[in-house]
Amino acid sequence: MTMEAFGEESFGDEPRWDAAPGWLAEGELAATRGRVPILYVEAVPVRIDPDGRVTEVGLLLRGSPTTGTITRSLVSGRVLHGERIRDALMRNLEKDLGPTAFPVLPLSTVPAAVAEYFPWPGDGLHDPRQHAVALAYVVPVSGECQPRQDALELTWMSPAEASSDAVAAEMEGGRGALLRRLLHDVGAI
Amino acid sequence: MTMEAFGEESFGDEPRWDAAPGWLAEGELAATRGRVPILYVEAVPVRIDPDGRVTEVGLLLRGSPTTGTITRSLVSGRVLHGERIRDALMRNLEKDLGPTAFPVLPLSTVPAAVAEYFPWPGDGLHDPRQHAVALAYVVPVSGECQPRQDALELTWMSPAEASSDAVAAEMEGGRGALLRRLLHDVGAI
Amino acid sequence: MTMEAFGEESFGDEPRWDAAPGWLAEGELAATRGRVPILYVEAVPVRIDPDGRVTEVGLLLRGSPTTGTITRSLVSGRVLHGERIRDALMRNLEKDLGPTAFPVLPLSTVPAAVAEYFPWPGDGLHDPRQHAVALAYVVPVSGECQPRQDALELTWMSPAEASSDAVAAEMEGGRGALLRRLLHDVGAI
Amino acid sequence: MTMEAFGEESFGDEPRWDAAPGWLAEGELAATRGRVPILYVEAVPVRIDPDGRVTEVGLLLRGSPTTGTITRSLVSGRVLHGERIRDALMRNLEKDLGPTAFPVLPLSTVPAAVAEYFPWPGDGLHDPRQHAVALAYVVPVSGECQPRQDALELTWMSPAEASSDAVAAEMEGGRGALLRRLLHDVGAI
Repeated sequence: MTMEAFGEESFGDEPRWDAAPGWLAEGELAATRGRVPILYVEAVPVRIDPDGRVTEVGLLLRGSPTTGTITRSLVSGRVLHGERIRDALMRNLEKDLGPTAFPVLPLSTVPAAVAEYFPWPGDGLHDPRQHAVALAYVVPVSGECQPRQDALELTWMSPAEASSDAVAAEMEGGRGALLRRLLHDVGAI
Repeated sequence: MTMEAFGEESFGDEPRWDAAPGWLAEGELAATRGRVPILYVEAVPVRIDPDGRVTEVGLLLRGSPTTGTITRSLVSGRVLHGERIRDALMRNLEKDLGPTAFPVLPLSTVPAAVAEYFPWPGDGLHDPRQHAVALAYVVPVSGECQPRQDALELTWMSPAEASSDAVAAEMEGGRGALLRRLLHDVGAI
Repeated sequence: MTMEAFGEESFGDEPRWDAAPGWLAEGELAATRGRVPILYVEAVPVRIDPDGRVTEVGLLLRGSPTTGTITRSLVSGRVLHGERIRDALMRNLEKDLGPTAFPVLPLSTVPAAVAEYFPWPGDGLHDPRQHAVALAYVVPVSGECQPRQDALELTWMSPAEASSDAVAAEMEGGRGALLRRLLHDVGAI
Repeated sequence: MTMEAFGEESFGDEPRWDAAPGWLAEGELAATRGRVPILYVEAVPVRIDPDGRVTEVGLLLRGSPTTGTITRSLVSGRVLHGERIRDALMRNLEKDLGPTAFPVLPLSTVPAAVAEYFPWPGDGLHDPRQHAVALAYVVPVSGECQPRQDALELTWMSPAEASSDAVAAEMEGGRGALLRRLLHDVGAI
């Protein structure tokens, strides 16, 4: 069992389809990762006021298997074979925020940003395991968030703090720039 | 007192600022309308399921002062001087849907469509009174809708029915095409 | 060698990377298709006037391997392992439109629509071979288009004709609805 | 005759319609500005590479009538009565960049951001003359730019420099934040 930097749950927890198994043995997933870009969804949980303005931004504190350090992260996970994007988004939000959080999914599946992660070093987003393409959303959440699995804690902070250089430096794979772009997109910063 | 096709409240109901009155005497508004494009917000109220999918579309039945006929309409109204777009959107939703409706405003003020109405005949959107530019949004609404003022009734229908030719023919000023565009934008049709 | 409905080039034409081969033997691709959603880009080529308004829409006439009939299609193809979305979009536009066409790629990689294709029958988009997720764009093209490979012809038509029921009936996998959504998104219909 | 901070041309240069004059005497415009929000378009001119990536950002150096200092500015101007948004965008680009610049207008009139300027001090965008609402776009430009009228110079800089704190401090009315948002929106920073 590994904790994975991209926010992926351990595979035993994933649903199974008989006709089209989204569940993959680790060897199969490793082979697949070398062949095609892997599709992810990512989400920034936010608190909003009654007028729809973002008041707080939620970031996960997560342990990284690659560096051993604690890093900040977005809600994130694979889109499984046969799974709709909305269902993948809701499943990963529930996985990372717990059963008492109530995410309000966007009306449209058009993402606020498309994040491209490459396994080789560069000036953009980076994922040492794979070429991943993530559809990224900002998702208002009400209720209480109780992170599960490998996420240690959910921290709420102001949009200004979330987009600070200090927080960007704590985010893995270059996601600080992605977070700023998402917060700009909704006018939160 | 006039009922206005664009869904504007009678002016006596508008808030007043001392420093910058959004309230205008009818003569002043008429003069202003001949000078600059007038900024509006428009909204399509929708019901959504827990996954964010649009299940129902709300259209207002409204009396038209220009034709005497009953027409279907979107939530609509002017952005007043000094008023934020979010506040104009919320004020007009409350005006047309009543105090027991709970609209969920979009995270971003970037509209789903920009609708341009011209006072002269053409192949696009038409408003006999003025050159109007409307920022148009799709807005999920929970609670109970009780239309007020000149709106007679709010009708909920499926996205397919709302985008039908029959409903488009009942919409004033060419808004049938605008409604289809908005429903396409959120993937509802 | 097969002609594929999704607009994918025959694999022998794909570029190779040594470190991260996007090229897959047919058996490997078939196995991969049963494991994860496959990422595609799709594009509607359009002609625009100097003001940026869409005047013509280009649709490919393409032979379908599954039905034997001739169908209309969008520019479409896989994002290869290690390939940027912009590069995949340009490569597939060149593949389908020829070397004398000059596509103007969008400033942002945020797509106009996200199209989800499932291998089982349903009321949405359908691809018998796989679960595919396509990022879809509208792309202005100047120069001369000379379709290559399995595309037989490129037909230019008005936005109204391209969004007609007759043309929708000729499009494979339910792409008529996708095309309408894309044309609505840019205000062409 | 004044040079205006919002980038508006002197009124004598504006086109006239007989039926619906967009041209206003200064007294009329002043009265109108106190009554309704005034609609503007704003644009960031950019240079792009063949793949659509932003390589350079153009900012105008402009004299401010309110402070006497030289400030950086975006292309900007009113939407006149009876004028389409596309036409207002093209007219203001030509006004600020000269006749040998070739802007490529966006396919959709949906803006990348909606900028709200208020005449009273606050934490957002500010215009001492009026309540203005600007539809803001990023516009690729080829050809040679020769600023006219009150714009003194057009400076091309990298996206990183354009979004720096130093440049933001030189921009009037808080437009540094707007510029960052627009550059984030197209993935340029």
